[in-house]
Amino acid sequence: EKDAYESNEFAGVVTGLAWTPVGGDILFIESLLSKGKGNLTLSGQLGDVMKESAMAALTYLKAHADDYGIDYRIFDQYNLHIHVPAGAVPKDGPSAGITMLTAIASALTQRKVKSKLAMTGEITLRGKVLPVGGIKEKILAAKRAGIKEIVMCSKNRKDVEEIEKSYISDISFHYVDAAEEVLKIALMKDKVKNPIKLEIKE
Amino acid sequence: EKDAYESNEFAGVVTGLAWTPVGGDILFIESLLSKGKGNLTLSGQLGDVMKESAMAALTYLKAHADDYGIDYRIFDQYNLHIHVPAGAVPKDGPSAGITMLTAIASALTQRKVKSKLAMTGEITLRGKVLPVGGIKEKILAAKRAGIKEIVMCSKNRKDVEEIEKSYISDISFHYVDAAEEVLKIALMKDKVKNPIKLEIKE
Amino acid sequence: EKDAYESNEFAGVVTGLAWTPVGGDILFIESLLSKGKGNLTLSGQLGDVMKESAMAALTYLKAHADDYGIDYRIFDQYNLHIHVPAGAVPKDGPSAGITMLTAIASALTQRKVKSKLAMTGEITLRGKVLPVGGIKEKILAAKRAGIKEIVMCSKNRKDVEEIEKSYISDISFHYVDAAEEVLKIALMKDKVKNPIKLEIKE
Amino acid sequence: EKDAYESNEFAGVVTGLAWTPVGGDILFIESLLSKGKGNLTLSGQLGDVMKESAMAALTYLKAHADDYGIDYRIFDQYNLHIHVPAGAVPKDGPSAGITMLTAIASALTQRKVKSKLAMTGEITLRGKVLPVGGIKEKILAAKRAGIKEIVMCSKNRKDVEEIEKSYISDISFHYVDAAEEVLKIALMKDKVKNPIKLEIKE
Amino acid sequence: EKDAYESNEFAGVVTGLAWTPVGGDILFIESLLSKGKGNLTLSGQLGDVMKESAMAALTYLKAHADDYGIDYRIFDQYNLHIHVPAGAVPKDGPSAGITMLTAIASALTQRKVKSKLAMTGEITLRGKVLPVGGIKEKILAAKRAGIKEIVMCSKNRKDVEEIEKSYISDISFHYVDAAEEVLKIALMKDKVKNPIKLEIKE
Amino acid sequence: EKDAYESNEFAGVVTGLAWTPVGGDILFIESLLSKGKGNLTLSGQLGDVMKESAMAALTYLKAHADDYGIDYRIFDQYNLHIHVPAGAVPKDGPSAGITMLTAIASALTQRKVKSKLAMTGEITLRGKVLPVGGIKEKILAAKRAGIKEIVMCSKNRKDVEEIEKSYISDISFHYVDAAEEVLKIALMKDKVKNPIKLEIKE
Ligand SMILES: [Ca+2]
Ligand SMILES: [Ca+2]
Ligand SMILES: [Ca+2]
Ligand SMILES: [Ca+2]
Ligand SMILES: [Ca+2]
Ligand SMILES: [Ca+2]
Ligand SMILES: [Ca+2]
Ligand SMILES: [Ca+2]
Ligand SMILES: [Ca+2]
Ligand SMILES: [Ca+2]
Ligand SMILES: [Ca+2]
Ligand SMILES: [Ca+2]
Repeated sequence: EKDAYESNEFAGVVTGLAWTPVGGDILFIESLLSKGKGNLTLSGQLGDVMKESAMAALTYLKAHADDYGIDYRIFDQYNLHIHVPAGAVPKDGPSAGITMLTAIASALTQRKVKSKLAMTGEITLRGKVLPVGGIKEKILAAKRAGIKEIVMCSKNRKDVEEIEKSYISDISFHYVDAAEEVLKIALMKDKVKNPIKLEIKE
Repeated sequence: EKDAYESNEFAGVVTGLAWTPVGGDILFIESLLSKGKGNLTLSGQLGDVMKESAMAALTYLKAHADDYGIDYRIFDQYNLHIHVPAGAVPKDGPSAGITMLTAIASALTQRKVKSKLAMTGEITLRGKVLPVGGIKEKILAAKRAGIKEIVMCSKNRKDVEEIEKSYISDISFHYVDAAEEVLKIALMKDKVKNPIKLEIKE
Repeated sequence: EKDAYESNEFAGVVTGLAWTPVGGDILFIESLLSKGKGNLTLSGQLGDVMKESAMAALTYLKAHADDYGIDYRIFDQYNLHIHVPAGAVPKDGPSAGITMLTAIASALTQRKVKSKLAMTGEITLRGKVLPVGGIKEKILAAKRAGIKEIVMCSKNRKDVEEIEKSYISDISFHYVDAAEEVLKIALMKDKVKNPIKLEIKE
Repeated sequence: EKDAYESNEFAGVVTGLAWTPVGGDILFIESLLSKGKGNLTLSGQLGDVMKESAMAALTYLKAHADDYGIDYRIFDQYNLHIHVPAGAVPKDGPSAGITMLTAIASALTQRKVKSKLAMTGEITLRGKVLPVGGIKEKILAAKRAGIKEIVMCSKNRKDVEEIEKSYISDISFHYVDAAEEVLKIALMKDKVKNPIKLEIKE
Repeated sequence: EKDAYESNEFAGVVTGLAWTPVGGDILFIESLLSKGKGNLTLSGQLGDVMKESAMAALTYLKAHADDYGIDYRIFDQYNLHIHVPAGAVPKDGPSAGITMLTAIASALTQRKVKSKLAMTGEITLRGKVLPVGGIKEKILAAKRAGIKEIVMCSKNRKDVEEIEKSYISDISFHYVDAAEEVLKIALMKDKVKNPIKLEIKE
Repeated sequence: EKDAYESNEFAGVVTGLAWTPVGGDILFIESLLSKGKGNLTLSGQLGDVMKESAMAALTYLKAHADDYGIDYRIFDQYNLHIHVPAGAVPKDGPSAGITMLTAIASALTQRKVKSKLAMTGEITLRGKVLPVGGIKEKILAAKRAGIKEIVMCSKNRKDVEEIEKSYISDISFHYVDAAEEVLKIALMKDKVKNPIKLEIKE
């Protein structure tokens, strides 16, 4: 059973696109901060490559916290938990990298994620976005789920151009090369309703 | 040998529904706080998915402690142990998620759990409740065990509707989509008799 | 070679009953406190289920320390080591739960354990005692070892009633449902001779 | 699909040369500092030998921090993350040693890495550079990727001399024996544009 | 090649008796204290049972430090390393328990170990000595190695009595049941020459 | 390809002799101190026995620091890294014990290691040197590599005497039984040129 796009009411939740042996699907990267000492918890039966993706996205944001208006002390005073439902389904691969990046950035800023937006792409430590596979299946899944905009690497443009235009005429594509472009597109200026109030001690 | 519903005299203990190869059964999620430094212990031969469920439920409650009237400092000053008897029986899967959530919330607040209530459903980090499998077997087991109310995901309603109505006429179903609905249904206003007194240091 | 009951001169040592492929046997749960920071060490080639039993018994006692007159600070200022000889024999299963509970409680209070008493039963986190298997073999081993009283779950009464009465006429059975009953039966008011002096720092 | 040289705009990123069963390729060692307590994180599906290479390079730089104008306290007050894209491709072997050394040194000093430069060579703890295999394939990949200068061990000179001269006339080779030679060649005097500002607490 | 008894010049070194598939042998349990924070290091390719033996012996001595005139603070301010040469030979089993106990006690007190003495026996946490196997082979090895006195469990007396008396007329046997008997026999009043000076901070 | 002796310009680097299935070889034990908290890092694809050798050598030096003029506080204020190139070649066995001992002692004192000296021998915790195998192959490799003096256990003398004298007339052998003899032979009075300056905080 395939999932549908849900909403952008929660900060920290971003829609990704996954390739599976039975076709594409959307998935939700959920990230949540709770008071703590800077620990990272990853759950949802994530494989090693996917865990390393999350770690790279997190280090990138820590090193560039200033650029995104994030008070660095949040990283020390809160724990970050990233979960990817459904909990029993094993997941792996680097293609959720930019989705994780965006989810963490939204959790840290409580900024709203753009509505009906999904993304797929590997992130590297320097903030480079890399192309990923399964683009066709992922786009079909996105369309079926009600997605209207998709962010991916500029090197994946050729994969999109192989799909019949009429079929995807109602979806906008954002081709990017760098993490900062992803966040510029995906994160709204406004915070979500009822943001979690992050308190920072001196 | 199948178990029977027991009582709601203990805070932190909630009745879940399990699917097993030989039919449904009820199980008891036991959670208990003891003075400590915020460690989480999971026992009862729980598999990885079930452990991750517990972690997601706990992070959800930490992040939303204010909403449930929980003093956040309990998480730092107490250890939480979750045990699922029988100790020798391996258990896994995400379907105990909302049961774990409720058990932890009851342990933290010492509020009584509603009598003759059982539940089954996956929890995600943003507090979403997901449907689970084995509904028919689980309901038969609940009936046999003396359960009168069952909480599950609204997406499982169709599974209930496939069961002959007369058979389940003495059970009420609560269909939910969010963690907060679960807790609203399951947690009574009153504390248990002889609550454990949680002491918080400044 | 089967073991015999030994004595109750040491606090922290309690006689359990074990089922093995070659018949029942008694075993000794040894627990010992030494100054430390609250670490738990388990030895004697214990399997995962048996280790989790010890952890559940310990958490139960921590959470209910007040009820048993235990100064909670002992848990922070002492390490607890539980060992089950013989060191080379692998052991597993939940049936030593109440024996471990009693051993820890005796070590913490330095109270004497009742003479010629043995026990078998699973413990859960809420302090419930669960029935266990191998009752017939265990009772034969207890008799052979010179045991005069046995504590077990009330749900195991039926297993005892299947044994010929004349054979066990010199053994008293205590059927229990809760941890507090076990401790009430097994722990004497008096401390052992030469108790280890537990010093608590403010 | 083979990669191309990218740029030297980021501090901490150095181009390495890799041997793979399907020919040589270039890879990018990315290193990034973020405020922390001196932890080292390695990602990119690195094997044990490659991880040990990174550890040796890091210890070498810690022990010789003074010689390279690095304030030792950075090592205590920042975490170091080394990532090698693509995230899903397993990598191993000691030949990225000097590349990792240079990447870490650049991250610590924010000094620019020489343009169109690649390198391959094992590093030892005393700063010795050792020869590595696959030189021919690595040079072909470097040429294809637009590399103009290559650093390697002097003991690999004979491997270069086996390649037809006309083919590699547009590449300069630097033969070295020690870590300090590598850093002297690869690190420019100037910092990158927009260096990450490393703040050191007294 | 079989080993010979060496000397009692070092505190912390005690001669044990081992059974191997090619006959008995003697082995040396070496223990050494160095300033630290109370860590225990075990080396010499020891199996799990043998490691647990060392842990039980150590806890016994910690809990009974007063009885042996050991200042408890040594355990917190020193690390203990136990090594059993030869380093490449795997060793396991509980029979080195009392040898480890004596080695640790000698290291802690710097008291000399009785000359030409060897021992074999399991130790339990309450300080009970248990019988072990391979007695005949062990005694032959002890004789060959120049051992004059052997400590073992009183329950092993029957194994000694099966050996022809004339053969072992030059060896004295000490049959014991408790740890304190072992230490009374094996530890001399005097310290070794050049004892390591253990300094305790207030 | 076999290695040649290199030089004694670096403190902390000592030449060992290794046996491999394709004959003897020399190897370099590299040790390096960097400011830290007393952690030990071992790299170079070392097996468990070899790691335990390093641990025994380190504990020996910690316990006898005074005897070798080492300020104990170095162990707390510096990390020790031991690496054995080549990084990709698995190594194991106890025979590098005395080489590791000497390497660590040289790193701690910055004293020069004797020129053209190699060694092989197991070390135990009490500082005893044990014989090792493969002596003939190791000596041939040492000769080929330009080694002029070799340290080994006195019990290995018989292995040397089996080699034709004329062949090894240009090599001196040092037969030892204790760690202190090894260090007396191998460590020069003078420090290396450009010693790393070890700073100790009060
Ligand atoms: Ca799905
Ligand atoms: Ca990719
Ligand atoms: Ca059941
Ligand atoms: Ca589910
Ligand atoms: Ca037995
Ligand atoms: Ca049971
Ligand atoms: Ca590539
Ligand atoms: Ca190499
Ligand atoms: Ca031997
Ligand atoms: Ca034994
Ligand atoms: Ca070599
Ligand atoms: Ca050896």
